[in-house]
Amino acid sequence: MQWVKVLGGVVGAAALLGLGIIVGHFAIPKGADSPAPSASASQDLDLEILKTVIEQLDADRIRENLRELSKEPHLATSPRDEALVQLLLQRWQDPESGLDSARTAEYEVLLSFPSEEQPNRVDVVNSTGAILFSCRHSEENLTGEQGGPNVVPPYAAYAPPGTPQGPLVYANQGSEEDFKELQNKGVKLQDSIVLTRYGGVGRGAKAVNAAKYGVIGVLVYTDPKDINDGKSLPNETFPHSWCLPPSGVERGSYFEYFGDPLTPYLPATPSSFRLNSDNASGFPPIPIQPIGFEDAQVLLCNLGGNLAPADWQGGLGCDYNLGPGFRSNGTFPEDSQVNVSVHNRLELRNSSNVLGIIRGAVEPDRYVLYGNHRDSWVHGAVDPSTGTAVLLELSRVLGTLLKKGTWRPRRSIVFASWGAEEFGLIGSTEFTEISAPGSSGLSIYDNWIRYYNRSSSVYGLVPSVGTLGAGSDYAPFIHFLGISSMDIAYTYDRSKTSARIYPTYHTAFDTFDYVNKFLDPGFTSHQAVARTAGSVLLRLSDSLFLPLNVSDYSETLRSFLQAAENLRVPLEQHNISLGPLVTAVEKFEGAATSLNQRIATLQKGTSDPLQVRMINDQLMLLERTFLNSQAFPEERYYSHVLWAPRTGSVATFPGLSNAYSQAENTGHEPAAWAEVQRQLSIVVAALEGAAATLRPVADL
Amino acid sequence: MQWVKVLGGVVGAAALLGLGIIVGHFAIPKGADSPAPSASASQDLDLEILKTVIEQLDADRIRENLRELSKEPHLATSPRDEALVQLLLQRWQDPESGLDSARTAEYEVLLSFPSEEQPNRVDVVNSTGAILFSCRHSEENLTGEQGGPNVVPPYAAYAPPGTPQGPLVYANQGSEEDFKELQNKGVKLQDSIVLTRYGGVGRGAKAVNAAKYGVIGVLVYTDPKDINDGKSLPNETFPHSWCLPPSGVERGSYFEYFGDPLTPYLPATPSSFRLNSDNASGFPPIPIQPIGFEDAQVLLCNLGGNLAPADWQGGLGCDYNLGPGFRSNGTFPEDSQVNVSVHNRLELRNSSNVLGIIRGAVEPDRYVLYGNHRDSWVHGAVDPSTGTAVLLELSRVLGTLLKKGTWRPRRSIVFASWGAEEFGLIGSTEFTEISAPGSSGLSIYDNWIRYYNRSSSVYGLVPSVGTLGAGSDYAPFIHFLGISSMDIAYTYDRSKTSARIYPTYHTAFDTFDYVNKFLDPGFTSHQAVARTAGSVLLRLSDSLFLPLNVSDYSETLRSFLQAAENLRVPLEQHNISLGPLVTAVEKFEGAATSLNQRIATLQKGTSDPLQVRMINDQLMLLERTFLNSQAFPEERYYSHVLWAPRTGSVATFPGLSNAYSQAENTGHEPAAWAEVQRQLSIVVAALEGAAATLRPVADL
Repeated sequence: MQWVKVLGGVVGAAALLGLGIIVGHFAIPKGADSPAPSASASQDLDLEILKTVIEQLDADRIRENLRELSKEPHLATSPRDEALVQLLLQRWQDPESGLDSARTAEYEVLLSFPSEEQPNRVDVVNSTGAILFSCRHSEENLTGEQGGPNVVPPYAAYAPPGTPQGPLVYANQGSEEDFKELQNKGVKLQDSIVLTRYGGVGRGAKAVNAAKYGVIGVLVYTDPKDINDGKSLPNETFPHSWCLPPSGVERGSYFEYFGDPLTPYLPATPSSFRLNSDNASGFPPIPIQPIGFEDAQVLLCNLGGNLAPADWQGGLGCDYNLGPGFRSNGTFPEDSQVNVSVHNRLELRNSSNVLGIIRGAVEPDRYVLYGNHRDSWVHGAVDPSTGTAVLLELSRVLGTLLKKGTWRPRRSIVFASWGAEEFGLIGSTEFTEISAPGSSGLSIYDNWIRYYNRSSSVYGLVPSVGTLGAGSDYAPFIHFLGISSMDIAYTYDRSKTSARIYPTYHTAFDTFDYVNKFLDPGFTSHQAVARTAGSVLLRLSDSLFLPLNVSDYSETLRSFLQAAENLRVPLEQHNISLGPLVTAVEKFEGAATSLNQRIATLQKGTSDPLQVRMINDQLMLLERTFLNSQAFPEERYYSHVLWAPRTGSVATFPGLSNAYSQAENTGHEPAAWAEVQRQLSIVVAALEGAAATLRPVADL
Repeated sequence: MQWVKVLGGVVGAAALLGLGIIVGHFAIPKGADSPAPSASASQDLDLEILKTVIEQLDADRIRENLRELSKEPHLATSPRDEALVQLLLQRWQDPESGLDSARTAEYEVLLSFPSEEQPNRVDVVNSTGAILFSCRHSEENLTGEQGGPNVVPPYAAYAPPGTPQGPLVYANQGSEEDFKELQNKGVKLQDSIVLTRYGGVGRGAKAVNAAKYGVIGVLVYTDPKDINDGKSLPNETFPHSWCLPPSGVERGSYFEYFGDPLTPYLPATPSSFRLNSDNASGFPPIPIQPIGFEDAQVLLCNLGGNLAPADWQGGLGCDYNLGPGFRSNGTFPEDSQVNVSVHNRLELRNSSNVLGIIRGAVEPDRYVLYGNHRDSWVHGAVDPSTGTAVLLELSRVLGTLLKKGTWRPRRSIVFASWGAEEFGLIGSTEFTEISAPGSSGLSIYDNWIRYYNRSSSVYGLVPSVGTLGAGSDYAPFIHFLGISSMDIAYTYDRSKTSARIYPTYHTAFDTFDYVNKFLDPGFTSHQAVARTAGSVLLRLSDSLFLPLNVSDYSETLRSFLQAAENLRVPLEQHNISLGPLVTAVEKFEGAATSLNQRIATLQKGTSDPLQVRMINDQLMLLERTFLNSQAFPEERYYSHVLWAPRTGSVATFPGLSNAYSQAENTGHEPAAWAEVQRQLSIVVAALEGAAATLRPVADL
């Protein structure tokens, strides 16, 4: 299945790029050298250097990086994770190909692990308590890599310990709607165990939703329909294909927020104030445990009760019933129940970030950060090691040029390997025209526009750039600090598979051979990402004018405004006018256009370094003007009025969309409509501020 | 009493100076001209220009400005207030002496006014309801300026309407301790009216504290002991001296927060979301009315009950008793009560800020803001017109140089006249050596150090700079935006009077003649402030390196740390270590020293404009690193971890001090000590961030 290309994923494994001042997080250590004597205030991107970098990025070296990085399981804070910290330091301190400096920053964070002494269990028991069936405690050792003490057994991180037992109910994806539907159908949920499949809502949300209906325990599995295009037999799954084997189990964090749970809004230094873990919020309220579809089949295909709705059916080769309890003519006595035993425990552990730095020649106080996380659930070949393998190759090529004295970027570059502590960068757009892998002759740009595009009112058909959610390390950068970020991934052809994500995601089957055999045998996709990322990185760090097009934001604002226009009638019924929003969007559009013209004019003339820096400051600070710490008081860290989580159905500004849905759903209470007006005012104030930020101060 | 010099006050009337990027609040309008051809990236302060400016600042012109500004009462949004908006626009648009541009920005804000039809009343009534005595409804018309429809009668702005009646109790300053003491003494507070004197706690706090004890109405007066050094007779008060006449009444806002009450955290544009005024918080909970000491004497000298404590006694020439109710042998029957009738109403009004702008030649995107507010309670000669009179003279001198083509500042200068909407700038230190008024031959510096000094561990005896509270327009700038600010005032000799503030503060006696006769007959103090402010303004707007000394913050941090050291033993008893704070303060000190050395080195060499701008960005952004929007969730707008309001008794970081007092007072609950640790961690994180911000990035 060579056509399937996975490199990184939108979730977790991707190379991350961002730009901004990270005030207070770290400072570049003082080096021995002054800026290179040749540094000029007008230093700009050198296309020859860019070409050299792109040519030197080596697919075989990326493969060897990946082999080394994914050789052993490297769960956060494990000995192998610590060994990789040393590997990164060694690479970045290499005299021939290292950076100016490298260092670690250690944090003390609350992690969650299963008990070694008491494995988590899922059993079917009869009315006398005898065990009739037990789910596997670990995945099948298919390649010799799924055994051994370093493979953490499947578990739901941060799920509380407990041993609930009750009749089984099938609850689809465990969304609020799913539970509502079960209730409407009269299925008794109180004191039940529910079986859910991955997808639809976040992991932790399944337990949160279930607990509201009196459910006492939750199981989660990956349905072959969602991940394997229906394939479920051993001989059609890994190691025979890229598909998930029947025993594969997706691990993951079930914590509702991001960052260390005990130190919200504070750095998790050893001396920092910590919540008592009993007072910390965001943990699942009831025990939850993931299982493989091999085991899920035994449970689900024996369920009694009514047939589940058509869109709740999956790929396990039987009719999915709702329960509660097992059917009369199945494997288990009707009154058998499911017992879930979870023995996870919380532990404070030391986790390191590794930072490698290239000092800027002209503007060392402006940083481009390029990072991805290091820790994996098991071997983590795809997630996250593809990202690190590419990052290391890029830092090697740039480091070599640096050590030779050939090149030093205009701005500082920081390479980062994030530990278990979640970090990240904030999104903006960029694209490139480097040759794509394979023999199609298509450029990356052509490939991109063919497989993942959208229609732009300004440019016509363009490559599409997704929206950054909170899936990976960029989340706190974009949502809390307002720093422009992007997440780069080369992914599979979604027209040929409906897989929710690459099939071995967060399982013990995400190994080097999996990548090497099925995903990218020639590592040409890795090389393409390295070239793309390298090009973006150099353009951001070396261009005299920052390559950020603020008019792209105009398109987003216009689409949000158009969606809001659909609400005009109901809003006016509650005396809420869209007029100020229309005006604010128009102001932003005008200011963005005018700034672009100003940049074009400046680029033609001589470049006064202070004038250029003023423009770049405007471009850089634009993202910051969208922050409002009062906008979403219930949402930890979220403060970006464009990209906060949207739960409302209208594809407009998230605060407005959510408040509108709330007002519709709560019987039109005045307080709910007041919140709609408040959210609208917050957006208007942010857009007015953004427009003011873009106005041509340097043109006075 | 010529020795008494008042120009501006710490509260409200002072010239304000600050520096920062005001992102999103406004942008400098686009002008026709490009930067002056002579503008050079290394343009620095020109001492000849500074000398010219100082010489041209004219005392007589300041006097005439003040005469015009204080000619009529100009309560916020009144016709005269609007006329002054036009006056400011006209001055700043003058072809000979105006600025580059001037404009207004209008807001719709919730103000509070007494009813014209139903005057507020304070009466003594007997048991049948007959009125035995009525307090004045207005001040005595002593100079012909205290009458007329434009003199707003004394009232407590934002006090709710109501007509409570009950026995009178004397409650000193109305602090929490005062009410506790009354309760301890067995004085019945439930359903009483309390009489309080100004001072000690904020205006609104008197009503908040009173309501907690069941008090139903509050009176406030200014005691001659607190304001007049005891003088209370007509012939020894204004117009015969600077003292407050018996009928004078201090007006003021009794709103607990700052900014428009209906649009917290949002601009008060007409379309903005507004709270329903029933849902707005921060208004006094019970009716409250201010009265003059002439009337207070009648009430207080007839009170019964026990004698009030010695430090509750004042200057009304009688023993102050506590009540409740009147004494048997006095003017009123014992069972007489006090009836308070308040008929204030809330009104949405349009209020304008006026902004006048000089575009910077080199760094137009960096602003120095110089403003003060325009609206007064009555004529407002001292408060705020002294500040505006000086500001207008300074803008005239600078505007003239600008129009002649003699000078254009390196950075942009924004002059601001704030309307009823409170705005402001954030504090830093600066001083000058310009000649002081009077014949002493002392410089302003010498005068300053003689009358208001402190001992610095670094410099020895230095002029003292107070701490910015929240008394005036700088509050949102320093506390919410983290912009360095200062408040400049020339004030009276506090060794010669114990007046709490200048005596006619917020009364109808604060008139031009009051200033011209008693405060500054030659307007030399005004001129001195103009010279000081002008010097500071030019140094901030024109110096190549920003004249901000970050090591001055080291002294503050060290003193806060020393105060915290006094808590070391009790903190350690609760497992809270000061070690990280000590380390963080040391890091800051080291970074500040190192930055100063870097600046000194750069100043000796050639000045690469980008390197200078990097340093200036560090200086400018330092203040921002002290903001933490999570630090004080209960305190609207406050987020500066060094300057938030301190209610705790230990003179250390306010969050730490307050949390410590709370823990001590609440019987040592674990949650209270956890908050102490949290506040300590917030301070440590801020200091670590501040130190990182100061590190020499440009030195790499």
